[in-house]
Amino acid sequence: MEFLYVAMNYLEKKAGYLDTGVWAHKALKEAQGLGEAVAVACSKDRNYCYIPKGYEIPTDLDYFHITTNNTIYGTEIRTDIDCPVPLIADMSSDILTRKVDVSKYALIYGGAQKNAGPAGVAFAIIRKDSLGKVSRYIPTMLDYRVHIDKQSMFNTPPVFPIFVMNETLKWLKSVGGIEAIQVQDEKKAEILYAEIDRNTMFRGTADKADRSIMNVCFVMAEGYEDKQDEFLEFAKSRDIVGIKGHRSVGGFRASIYNACTLEDVQALVDCMQEFEKKNA
Amino acid sequence: MEFLYVAMNYLEKKAGYLDTGVWAHKALKEAQGLGEAVAVACSKDRNYCYIPKGYEIPTDLDYFHITTNNTIYGTEIRTDIDCPVPLIADMSSDILTRKVDVSKYALIYGGAQKNAGPAGVAFAIIRKDSLGKVSRYIPTMLDYRVHIDKQSMFNTPPVFPIFVMNETLKWLKSVGGIEAIQVQDEKKAEILYAEIDRNTMFRGTADKADRSIMNVCFVMAEGYEDKQDEFLEFAKSRDIVGIKGHRSVGGFRASIYNACTLEDVQALVDCMQEFEKKNA
Repeated sequence: MEFLYVAMNYLEKKAGYLDTGVWAHKALKEAQGLGEAVAVACSKDRNYCYIPKGYEIPTDLDYFHITTNNTIYGTEIRTDIDCPVPLIADMSSDILTRKVDVSKYALIYGGAQKNAGPAGVAFAIIRKDSLGKVSRYIPTMLDYRVHIDKQSMFNTPPVFPIFVMNETLKWLKSVGGIEAIQVQDEKKAEILYAEIDRNTMFRGTADKADRSIMNVCFVMAEGYEDKQDEFLEFAKSRDIVGIKGHRSVGGFRASIYNACTLEDVQALVDCMQEFEKKNA
Repeated sequence: MEFLYVAMNYLEKKAGYLDTGVWAHKALKEAQGLGEAVAVACSKDRNYCYIPKGYEIPTDLDYFHITTNNTIYGTEIRTDIDCPVPLIADMSSDILTRKVDVSKYALIYGGAQKNAGPAGVAFAIIRKDSLGKVSRYIPTMLDYRVHIDKQSMFNTPPVFPIFVMNETLKWLKSVGGIEAIQVQDEKKAEILYAEIDRNTMFRGTADKADRSIMNVCFVMAEGYEDKQDEFLEFAKSRDIVGIKGHRSVGGFRASIYNACTLEDVQALVDCMQEFEKKNA
């Protein structure tokens, strides 16, 4: 639903999208239903395993849209890019994992269900002066201005998801806020990628420069392809579950969101090391 | 949001709405944003205190939309009306309170937050062959067919609200289902309206023939207008809260949804009787 809000509220003549994965592509498609929207750059040529570089953002765009973290392919844009047109970012899966310079964005939005709260609530950080620039009719419920005017209570708010989101934010504050969680998140990713790069039985799928801090994708290394199911079973025997990769990439995906501890990640690293000792 | 789904999926040339209150009117307005939509009948002339009668439904409508229960004004359409065009009903506030002949409707929809579950989830009972008859472009997330195809999991589902809705449905089954709750709901409304009609200090606001079983609206009777705050305080001293009427009607509103027991309603009746003894 959030993709539709973007196009409804910002697309007048032409929008540009960075096509970096399934969700980025869906956002582009939804915009194309309402008007002209183009992929400024796309990384589909290598199964979305990298973030495009060196592309030029046309200055005639109403906005440029990025998906900062690509859950399925394990890539991430972890800087606030310079952009000559209003910048819009879907941060569904990496909000609250690093300090963001919100002043660089016209809109940051996303579903809460990764680091912010449970499924059923979305967030939008809007620079107010970025709104009101389209001539289309915007249905009431899809008009960000209505929600701003009514202080997010135009509709009956999803009380429980909002309550849990608030509890999550309080928890985040209590453990030291963004600064502290960023250190932990980066440490978690660092030890896991280090093990993937060291371990002879595994290899990462995303380009090193673009590796996601949240979703760590890896597969069995050459020669060990037939060991995939065995590793999943081995991990399961040590209470490590949910690490099967998305079918578009295969292999494994460790989604190490904020709720995942350093100890959790270390347990996976230990598991990979023992699996190597046993098999290599 | 649900109003928008209706117009998006069903409005081609012209839609008709029964304007029976704030929500019915908002539904009409949302449709008017997308095309031609008219009020076939309206009860605003007497502050929405009744359901219009004797109106004729034009046969050239794409659909006729009713809001079966009007929470603010305490009126209700408690029968499945005959309709020469596809009938669409917003049953947000009285679904699961009576047997409904779903075969008479193209679409029954609503927010779950009264009798079905917590805020944050909506339901739609759709006659499949009623869809696909409009030529407009329907954004993916607003297309009922997409949600049907994806078995309501096109988006990340709001897991907790759906879980609680399921628990609520299991509870409803365990207490005897719709048949049993209908008896209780009608009994609750009956004893409360009987007290309103008997008690010299109060009077009901909705026409008797159109009284809602869910939202019982009443005000201080003539001569006792200045006792309103005193009654609210008196009720509060007996742990009865949340009965202040909506500002559009004033007075009191007892929302006696399925979660409210016969004993709860009896407590309000007793409170009204004692207040009368004390004051009249």
